[in-house]
Amino acid sequence: KCITEVLFFPDLKVACKAHFTSIEGCNNRHCRYTHSGNSLSRLYNYLTLSRKSLDVCVFVLSCADLADILILVHKRGVMVRIITDNEQVNVQGSQIWRLRSEGKFSCLFSGIIVRTDNSSFFMHHKFVVIDNEILINGSFNWTRQAITGNQENLVVMNDPEIVQQFQTEFENMWTEFDPR
Amino acid sequence: KCITEVLFFPDLKVACKAHFTSIEGCNNRHCRYTHSGNSLSRLYNYLTLSRKSLDVCVFVLSCADLADILILVHKRGVMVRIITDNEQVNVQGSQIWRLRSEGKFSCLFSGIIVRTDNSSFFMHHKFVVIDNEILINGSFNWTRQAITGNQENLVVMNDPEIVQQFQTEFENMWTEFDPR
Ligand SMILES: [Zn+2]
Ligand SMILES: [Zn+2]
Repeated sequence: KCITEVLFFPDLKVACKAHFTSIEGCNNRHCRYTHSGNSLSRLYNYLTLSRKSLDVCVFVLSCADLADILILVHKRGVMVRIITDNEQVNVQGSQIWRLRSEGKFSCLFSGIIVRTDNSSFFMHHKFVVIDNEILINGSFNWTRQAITGNQENLVVMNDPEIVQQFQTEFENMWTEFDPR
Repeated sequence: KCITEVLFFPDLKVACKAHFTSIEGCNNRHCRYTHSGNSLSRLYNYLTLSRKSLDVCVFVLSCADLADILILVHKRGVMVRIITDNEQVNVQGSQIWRLRSEGKFSCLFSGIIVRTDNSSFFMHHKFVVIDNEILINGSFNWTRQAITGNQENLVVMNDPEIVQQFQTEFENMWTEFDPR
């Protein structure tokens, strides 16, 4: 079935992560987040529905809630790989070290592997490929400001030709940015 | 006919603007730019083929060559409208004032109208809608660094449902950012 969905930001309110990503749902009676569907909740849906692989390629990754989702699906056994910009790894709020370390939750699993470019230019993409089947691509960096502040867009699509080109781009960068 | 094309950057060389956008072509025998097709030349192609309208919505617009294309099609009678981020209007190399003034080339035409947000958040989109029919969207700001330096993407498509949603987003911002 053909998926084409456009998500625009900013959302008026921040979607409740517990409500949209856990089976138990939200049990905070005084929850300050919204339980109504919006752009962030759709993004949560797509990410949590991943079954095999999540290839994340974003310039900035500083939103702890979105990093939580990556750790969640990693713990479920989804292969999570991240490419980001080297100059963004150490900025305030960066989730990169947490993803690399908290992912290591048992002797069975290593942390989530994060690779970066090593140039003064920007690794400026903002896309995710889910299960080699769905592409989410646009202007949206994984920051809190992008969710409720900025004008941003994401296009979700599963056209196999487009998805394949982004998957190949990801694999090429993954190899190019191998630190060894 | 269905258009879906992915353009990845960086290009190895800068495409020759004269070669790809003018009927006469390039007559510089010592041209240092490339006459081989690449991602920038495809972007030039799409922009110069506009017949009615070009709605440009980009966070940063500092590439003089891409601004030249907007002035070119504006002079041909294409309705060019630009939305950009207010904090980017006065950065070094910004083409905004040039677009506003050089567009005014005769008493028949006004300059190109550029509108901006007026918040500390970012108008962070990077998309163009051509003739209300083709969408070009991705991570690509209109800067020289995005052409030959950064990892960037643009997806070109003409799926009417997606194009319509971006056209509506543009119209909504155009109204919201009206300075009057
Ligand atoms: Zn809640
Ligand atoms: Zn030339």
